[in-house]
Amino acid sequence: MGFAGRSIISLHDMTAADLEVIMDTSGRIKAGRETGFLQGRTIAVMFFEASTRTRLSFESAIQRSGGTVIGFANPASSSQSKGESFADTISTVTGYCDAMVIRHPVEGSARLASDIASVPVINAGDGANQHPTQTFLDLFTMKESFGRLEGLHIGMLGDLKYGRTVHSLATAMAMFGARMTFISPHTLQMPDMIKRELSQAGVSFREVRQPEEAGDDLDVLYVTRIQRERFGDPQEYESVAHSFRVTADTIRGLGGRVLVMHPLPRVDEIAEDVDRLPNAIYFRQAHNGIPTRQALLGLVTGGLS
Amino acid sequence: MGFAGRSIISLHDMTAADLEVIMDTSGRIKAGRETGFLQGRTIAVMFFEASTRTRLSFESAIQRSGGTVIGFANPASSSQSKGESFADTISTVTGYCDAMVIRHPVEGSARLASDIASVPVINAGDGANQHPTQTFLDLFTMKESFGRLEGLHIGMLGDLKYGRTVHSLATAMAMFGARMTFISPHTLQMPDMIKRELSQAGVSFREVRQPEEAGDDLDVLYVTRIQRERFGDPQEYESVAHSFRVTADTIRGLGGRVLVMHPLPRVDEIAEDVDRLPNAIYFRQAHNGIPTRQALLGLVTGGLS
Amino acid sequence: MGFAGRSIISLHDMTAADLEVIMDTSGRIKAGRETGFLQGRTIAVMFFEASTRTRLSFESAIQRSGGTVIGFANPASSSQSKGESFADTISTVTGYCDAMVIRHPVEGSARLASDIASVPVINAGDGANQHPTQTFLDLFTMKESFGRLEGLHIGMLGDLKYGRTVHSLATAMAMFGARMTFISPHTLQMPDMIKRELSQAGVSFREVRQPEEAGDDLDVLYVTRIQRERFGDPQEYESVAHSFRVTADTIRGLGGRVLVMHPLPRVDEIAEDVDRLPNAIYFRQAHNGIPTRQALLGLVTGGLS
Repeated sequence: MGFAGRSIISLHDMTAADLEVIMDTSGRIKAGRETGFLQGRTIAVMFFEASTRTRLSFESAIQRSGGTVIGFANPASSSQSKGESFADTISTVTGYCDAMVIRHPVEGSARLASDIASVPVINAGDGANQHPTQTFLDLFTMKESFGRLEGLHIGMLGDLKYGRTVHSLATAMAMFGARMTFISPHTLQMPDMIKRELSQAGVSFREVRQPEEAGDDLDVLYVTRIQRERFGDPQEYESVAHSFRVTADTIRGLGGRVLVMHPLPRVDEIAEDVDRLPNAIYFRQAHNGIPTRQALLGLVTGGLS
Repeated sequence: MGFAGRSIISLHDMTAADLEVIMDTSGRIKAGRETGFLQGRTIAVMFFEASTRTRLSFESAIQRSGGTVIGFANPASSSQSKGESFADTISTVTGYCDAMVIRHPVEGSARLASDIASVPVINAGDGANQHPTQTFLDLFTMKESFGRLEGLHIGMLGDLKYGRTVHSLATAMAMFGARMTFISPHTLQMPDMIKRELSQAGVSFREVRQPEEAGDDLDVLYVTRIQRERFGDPQEYESVAHSFRVTADTIRGLGGRVLVMHPLPRVDEIAEDVDRLPNAIYFRQAHNGIPTRQALLGLVTGGLS
Repeated sequence: MGFAGRSIISLHDMTAADLEVIMDTSGRIKAGRETGFLQGRTIAVMFFEASTRTRLSFESAIQRSGGTVIGFANPASSSQSKGESFADTISTVTGYCDAMVIRHPVEGSARLASDIASVPVINAGDGANQHPTQTFLDLFTMKESFGRLEGLHIGMLGDLKYGRTVHSLATAMAMFGARMTFISPHTLQMPDMIKRELSQAGVSFREVRQPEEAGDDLDVLYVTRIQRERFGDPQEYESVAHSFRVTADTIRGLGGRVLVMHPLPRVDEIAEDVDRLPNAIYFRQAHNGIPTRQALLGLVTGGLS
């Protein structure tokens, strides 16, 4: 299925071939081989929930491709404070733009918007559910680093229960035949639903409790934040958070070759001494949000093919 | 009087000929026959009161015409929080831009701004007073639908006492020899001042209490919100709001041919079953905010003539 | 030292030759002789503290030069509300843009950002410390008015103790051999550190208590706000604020030829009757923020040289 006119709501709507197209296009853009493909197009960037990083990344991507931006950065600036329904907001704004990027705290909002809008909708995060463009930049960064996704060994560390980022990443990496090791405290392990999905797809994965159990052949350690609010007992949080903190020592313990990724923002879960190691690629990863979002917008608006 | 350099503050400053120019120009823009006329121009969009719909519509209009936007979405981001006078804010920003769009909660603010600024000022709503660009898009939508404004029969329903939209619309339709029927509860009927203005202009109007009394030759039913705060007694509000709620049945009762308009945002005053009828044109009406605002900005900046 | 790639953090990093380059470039831009030099460049305008005037001025400057803007207007919209460090925010956003403009309430923030970012950083005000682009527009306005800075007699009036604007202006004017008279209540006089700096540079200055003691050969009276919070006793504030209020009479008392400048926003310290005098150049001064900021951005991004 082609991309022109298509909404991008969930990784579950996408095939490996789709992801290859996005990665290839991102690569051409990053190499400076595609420009101006959003010329004359206006994109609505509607953040019903604040998220500077994602918003700025989209706004830079749009403008670097020649497009223009309308929108809002937080719900207080939206008409919904006057009692308007989400559906009416979408029905109106669809006539002001050529595509919409939506961030919303409620699961399913982006899907609902795509059912109403006459322009393509890109889900920039709907609650705990999906944030597909994060996965696109994660995949692109790994492919850029290793030249392939097939056969990589990915460790995912931290809160694997509630982290939508690692759920989508697992779904995507399964399409490319990666091996996965899930590293988390017992209470925050990968949901059964995802593990069933992987098993059915014949994907090999393991679950361990500590980074050092992941083996020394990890290609990528993908770290996520463990949130204080997940724990009733503050002391339990402190002890878990401490034992899942990635330091330069953690990296050496994993063989020293592993690349460290993180969806950001980071709080304490990666020590600053890791920043100076060549293993740390999380800022390059964040910067790759620009070409991957450019690619996606170019594809769905028909500016690129 | 030409448009270049002119501020647009109130319908009362405008002639039928002016409105024709705006509608004709909007039509040419919507047909794709005028582009890039704001190239190299910066428009300040200053919202001292939040209003997403109007703001996004202006920002899309500006950028689709090749212009660029500076401004703010709410008063908390303005220098006035440091104690600066409104006049000083205008005196400063006039030097940063080629035209200003101002939304302000206080009546007369836009007029004051236009007295100070050296660039054209467009009133995007000053309190309960005027919101002329809403009227331009209303007129354009009716002309687009019927090919003419002359002789149309317009029903205006809801809060006719406090609704600035219907006041301006009545003033404008009077210039084009429309017939009007005002449909409202007794306590929210059209102010005497407006009715006197219409009588003096020789315009034919009636006042009724219920939609079904408007007759079956209505061309347009223009619905506005009845606000809870207008009623001391919540039960009285509920009963009035309910009997003025427009449903698919209301439309059938009016002959089934009437087009339904609304300035939006809507809350409960039009049932969602109306959305699916071909009579419902309120979203197209909202979308027409783009070409009409493009037209106006092109005209006042001299980019179009 | 050339400008391409350089961060602009403090007046103390700059030479008279640097300031001449900025003023000359600003003049060419104001005369319409340089355009489009930020084409294809995205500038992040990050305001961790609200300041409409400065932000709009930068955003207009960027877009008038062909560049595009990403950013935020206040800290509530930033990722730091999720606990991210300032350093991580900078490390991320540096990959989204070609230069950064930063306003932050904490002294030294802009310097820190420039140590981290891989793109040039422009300090748009860091607490009580530095706000160099204000000084550039002040200098440009004086040079535009007198054709030179050398030998001018500048009176600085108001809060000379806490006002970062007058500190930077004194530092800069010293490089051009201006004479200075500092006019302030005893408790708000120019800090010893600045006076020592001037003495060492062989710059001639005097300190007086009232405007009328400044002599009748002042070229410029540079007025700043006296802030209520500097005084424990409200009555003392009232009496000081009143005696430092500049009126048309003050101007006549100074010989009637002096030009009046102010960094704005003004509250009460210049009476409105001054606005109508040809001496009042503070709004032209504010408007000169556009060409001077255009010049600076063009120079540091390498779009101009």
